[in-house]
Amino acid sequence: MSDAETLQSGRRGHGRAAKRAARMAHAAATVPFITRQIPIYEVLNEEGLSLIEQNAETVLEEVGIDFKGDPEALAIWREAGADVREERVHIPRGLCRRIIREHAPATYTQHARNPARSVVMGGKHTVFAPAYGPPFVHDLDRGRRYGTIEDFRNFVKLTYATPWLHHSGGTVCEPVDLPVNKRHLDMVYAHMRYSDKPFMGSVTAPERAADTVAMAEILFGADWIDPATGKPRTVVTSLINANSPLTWDATMLGALKVYARANQANLLTPFILAGAMAPVTVAGSTTLTLAEAMAGVAFTQLVAPSAPVILGSFASSMSMKSGAPTFGTPEPAMVMYAMAALARRLNVPFRAGGAFTASKIPDAQAAYESALTMLPACLAGTNFILHTAGWLEGGLAMGYEKFVMDADQAGMLQTMLNGIDLSENGQAMDAIREVGPGKHFLGCGHTQANFESAFHGSAIADNNSFEQWDAEGRLDQAQRANAQWKRMLQDYEPPPIDPATDDALLDFMARRKAATPDSNV
Amino acid sequence: MSDAETLQSGRRGHGRAAKRAARMAHAAATVPFITRQIPIYEVLNEEGLSLIEQNAETVLEEVGIDFKGDPEALAIWREAGADVREERVHIPRGLCRRIIREHAPATYTQHARNPARSVVMGGKHTVFAPAYGPPFVHDLDRGRRYGTIEDFRNFVKLTYATPWLHHSGGTVCEPVDLPVNKRHLDMVYAHMRYSDKPFMGSVTAPERAADTVAMAEILFGADWIDPATGKPRTVVTSLINANSPLTWDATMLGALKVYARANQANLLTPFILAGAMAPVTVAGSTTLTLAEAMAGVAFTQLVAPSAPVILGSFASSMSMKSGAPTFGTPEPAMVMYAMAALARRLNVPFRAGGAFTASKIPDAQAAYESALTMLPACLAGTNFILHTAGWLEGGLAMGYEKFVMDADQAGMLQTMLNGIDLSENGQAMDAIREVGPGKHFLGCGHTQANFESAFHGSAIADNNSFEQWDAEGRLDQAQRANAQWKRMLQDYEPPPIDPATDDALLDFMARRKAATPDSNV
Repeated sequence: MSDAETLQSGRRGHGRAAKRAARMAHAAATVPFITRQIPIYEVLNEEGLSLIEQNAETVLEEVGIDFKGDPEALAIWREAGADVREERVHIPRGLCRRIIREHAPATYTQHARNPARSVVMGGKHTVFAPAYGPPFVHDLDRGRRYGTIEDFRNFVKLTYATPWLHHSGGTVCEPVDLPVNKRHLDMVYAHMRYSDKPFMGSVTAPERAADTVAMAEILFGADWIDPATGKPRTVVTSLINANSPLTWDATMLGALKVYARANQANLLTPFILAGAMAPVTVAGSTTLTLAEAMAGVAFTQLVAPSAPVILGSFASSMSMKSGAPTFGTPEPAMVMYAMAALARRLNVPFRAGGAFTASKIPDAQAAYESALTMLPACLAGTNFILHTAGWLEGGLAMGYEKFVMDADQAGMLQTMLNGIDLSENGQAMDAIREVGPGKHFLGCGHTQANFESAFHGSAIADNNSFEQWDAEGRLDQAQRANAQWKRMLQDYEPPPIDPATDDALLDFMARRKAATPDSNV
Repeated sequence: MSDAETLQSGRRGHGRAAKRAARMAHAAATVPFITRQIPIYEVLNEEGLSLIEQNAETVLEEVGIDFKGDPEALAIWREAGADVREERVHIPRGLCRRIIREHAPATYTQHARNPARSVVMGGKHTVFAPAYGPPFVHDLDRGRRYGTIEDFRNFVKLTYATPWLHHSGGTVCEPVDLPVNKRHLDMVYAHMRYSDKPFMGSVTAPERAADTVAMAEILFGADWIDPATGKPRTVVTSLINANSPLTWDATMLGALKVYARANQANLLTPFILAGAMAPVTVAGSTTLTLAEAMAGVAFTQLVAPSAPVILGSFASSMSMKSGAPTFGTPEPAMVMYAMAALARRLNVPFRAGGAFTASKIPDAQAAYESALTMLPACLAGTNFILHTAGWLEGGLAMGYEKFVMDADQAGMLQTMLNGIDLSENGQAMDAIREVGPGKHFLGCGHTQANFESAFHGSAIADNNSFEQWDAEGRLDQAQRANAQWKRMLQDYEPPPIDPATDDALLDFMARRKAATPDSNV
């Protein structure tokens, strides 16, 4: 935890100033990540958690898990003591847990090129990142359309400008206008150039992961190798999804190995639509998630002991009418609470949550569903919350207005995680004595002294009277968010970058692009 | 707790059937109230809670609290050992707590005229009721306008038809078309006639409280007196608000005394807009809320020992820009968690929460803000959640679409409170064994057997594909809710009532209306 202490030294003292600055949209003055000051919410007791753990061990040993198309992975598992039959790996009870507890770090620092933006993953920390993966984008003016590299850059810029998002994310939308085999270069470059927050790397092929690492090495230059360890600093966290149920595929395993061997972080996530990739029950989905995630995390540690890793969970429920995925329902929240506790028992950082919704537009459905995932994710003690802002349509679309609305909510949640101030000033007994019965606190000294920092205010909520709201054009929240993202893009100024570094990155990309013809696989 | 056991006997066995029935909107088959199966979320530890308690005692003793315009109340306090100076009551440390712990019941049953609808307040139970008090109503067709008795009846009917609302509430909107001094009769009658769920009584004058009790006696007839105690059964719970800071007014005290002496329940609630009626800090607002609520609850027990009572908290924050009340912010949620814990330490039922919002319309702002109060209210272990459905515009308007949307969310929260099924069926190990790696669970026996009851489904969320949503007219959630409340009113059928009872009620009302001229005070 000394990482966190170093990074956050002086944080509490500057909390008020940081808050004020944040309100003025000076992202630079905000904290680089959250340090939770409130207790975690636990939904299962020791008995319940250990029942799930026992069941997950039974799944790994009896049912087994497939590592597909990767003979090296099978050899690694055989070597570690697993019973490998063709591509199915039967892992003896307790083996994954032992490997994880022995080698996987409890926390790690993901360094940003601006050291003031580096984040600590794990422990009492929470890091918010924007949505990941949508092929479409949506805004009120143009509706829904395929994402482009311009949209991608816009969301990197918006994330950079948002004080409540600590991490630039990864595939903030698919830049469908670029060839599949080269777009990762432009995506990684956009994170490096238009933001100085930490970011995620490409996972769609091992060589694209290698490109990400090569560009990171250029970007960090003299800071790439940590002299204390002789290893590269961790500057990329990348998303490795399981092909649930119980399958890890060659593509993901290939990227995983590239990153782990370069000391970059892997985020291992079973992607569970309960009813399709897992049983329809919370306990069954949790069991399968734990089994898959443990096998993935243990595998990273077999590939590269002590390589940074996050244990992830993505859970959704299903419409009983249509079989469509549903979000913001109670069951996935239950999976999150349970999985967060299970990750803590493995002593590794945990990822879950996001502003999930099945809605196509930034309406009340989108908001209810997003809130009913984000708040549980925070209360569960989740360390990395991918998809904090922008997600629409079950992840198929990245919404501009939705992004602004979700990011605003992330500010609420950050304030919530700061907990209750029980100092003398927080207790405010002098104010209560001064005002007494039947009067009001508006003008008292304590209110004046604390007014500016007292409450977290939304930047896009309308709290005015009906009459004023009416006079101002009866806008709904999405319309106010529409004005806000345009303002943010207009006001955007890129963080400085050393021109020589920038040239080297552009030169690397040009050479990589020239080396192979465009392809859409 | 034997009340609860009796009322809920057989409940668990019928859970699945009830759920199915609820989906078919047969309110009759649902549970009459929630019994929480998940842990409570605690935000303060023993040290923090006891600090607030000590401060609240200091406030009551040193600062004192006003009981205004009610000499009898002052005499009661003097008799109890308080130091009364003019209308200010200085209450010795520990006195309120002692009175409450000695006399106030930990739980009580509020009987409904349909015994299957009776609710237990307190303990592990949660009861949802619609919003209370708005002078305006809002719907998508007609916009915002003053409420009428027709609107009032509509909301009583909608609440009756909603399986997730357990309680009919009180002033679901102000029927502004009726004279102030007589409208309580029509409101109470509407709850009695158009619903068979439990309801709230009038508090705007002692004689209106007496009218409520008289009508309850007519409605319950032979069941009015409990032969076991010789006292009236508790069939009304009424909302007694403090005039914060630190003032209880004659009107509310008058109603309180009528209800307490008739063994009817009082819900004592400090109404705190932090920054105006309390300090701008969470700890300060909580201290003041506890002090006021303890004084109110203790007073009910001095008036009528063991009269049923609920300790309430209403907290909102304030816009730092305009001074307007704000909702769905982190600070009021913190007050709720803390107050719920403090009420538990007094061993009395607790009321808080609601689908609060400052938004004028059922948009994303309304949904985010509502969710960020309702979920904390549930996790806090709140027993009575007034304002669960309909609230708009800081409580100034009751929204038809908002009502439907919030009620739908109440179903989500009810499912959440049911917790995780850890039975063999819940663990689903056979399903995991049957399906194995790389296949899917859609067709397996376990999924088939559990499909119908597996996940809670929203009645108004759209989870379909973009193309289907597009083909169906691109409706937002508020538009779907608009169709739903119309359908519900169309399908509404009143619960049966004995015609003689109905005549007696109508006769009572006619006599009371004839006895005095109309007046709007």
